[in-house]
Amino acid sequence: MVQKKDVGRKRQAVEESRSAKVRSIGVIRSVLKTRAESPKQGFEGAPDAWLEVSQFAAQGLDGLAVGDEIIVLTWLHRARRAVLKVHPRSDPKAPLTGVFATRSPDRPNPVGLHRVRVLSIARRRLRVGPIEAIDGTPVIDIKPVLNAVNDF
Amino acid sequence: MVQKKDVGRKRQAVEESRSAKVRSIGVIRSVLKTRAESPKQGFEGAPDAWLEVSQFAAQGLDGLAVGDEIIVLTWLHRARRAVLKVHPRSDPKAPLTGVFATRSPDRPNPVGLHRVRVLSIARRRLRVGPIEAIDGTPVIDIKPVLNAVNDF
Repeated sequence: MVQKKDVGRKRQAVEESRSAKVRSIGVIRSVLKTRAESPKQGFEGAPDAWLEVSQFAAQGLDGLAVGDEIIVLTWLHRARRAVLKVHPRSDPKAPLTGVFATRSPDRPNPVGLHRVRVLSIARRRLRVGPIEAIDGTPVIDIKPVLNAVNDF
Repeated sequence: MVQKKDVGRKRQAVEESRSAKVRSIGVIRSVLKTRAESPKQGFEGAPDAWLEVSQFAAQGLDGLAVGDEIIVLTWLHRARRAVLKVHPRSDPKAPLTGVFATRSPDRPNPVGLHRVRVLSIARRRLRVGPIEAIDGTPVIDIKPVLNAVNDF
């Protein structure tokens, strides 16, 4: 017998898939507080940070271990989504370029892509780095780096 | 003088950032029609496919060239978003593992990550591959692969 609760959950899942609304699964806790003080990429001197995973998503972490390389996807909530062309590296002398040919955070869907190492795990909190995402940045996904040619 | 149109656009951009709703910027056109016939990763025998960029986002492509390596982010619209644990590689003998320690499409935010090469460009259509995303999969972002240690 199918329970009411399951039907509700299933309907919710279907609706979420259709609406394509991103749901935060965690948040970055960092000493970086503003875009201005943040390096453009993690390998450009960014600090380590905490990735706090929400209670509802915590069991999704099972199997991750200290030392793993992971890909953290964030939602760059301060980005400007109407922008389609930028001066690369914020250099006004660089010719205007389509955002899909740059790593600018300003773009229609401001998803940040961060390849980091897991430095420690304290229940739902992962110490990761180096990462340029600022404090309060929503995390939307975590994926392991695969051991294969041309993986991320 | 600020024009009404600009104010409207700005308001729309602010609202979109808050709501964190993903907006498709294009679509995959592939010979792969179902999840069942799709390999799990692009490097596991996937075909090339067309990435058709929407009119509104087309100028975001300026600067991309044939031969470039890019990262395509998709929204895996057939995924089940309520799933937090899976049997890796769909192998029932593999122990249940948190989705964040796997590359399962089933996860709270089903963002697909595909590193591919640009094989040809015909206006708003990019031939890319190899890519395991099925026909009709929405594309949400395109990023260049950077030439740096530990980039994607």
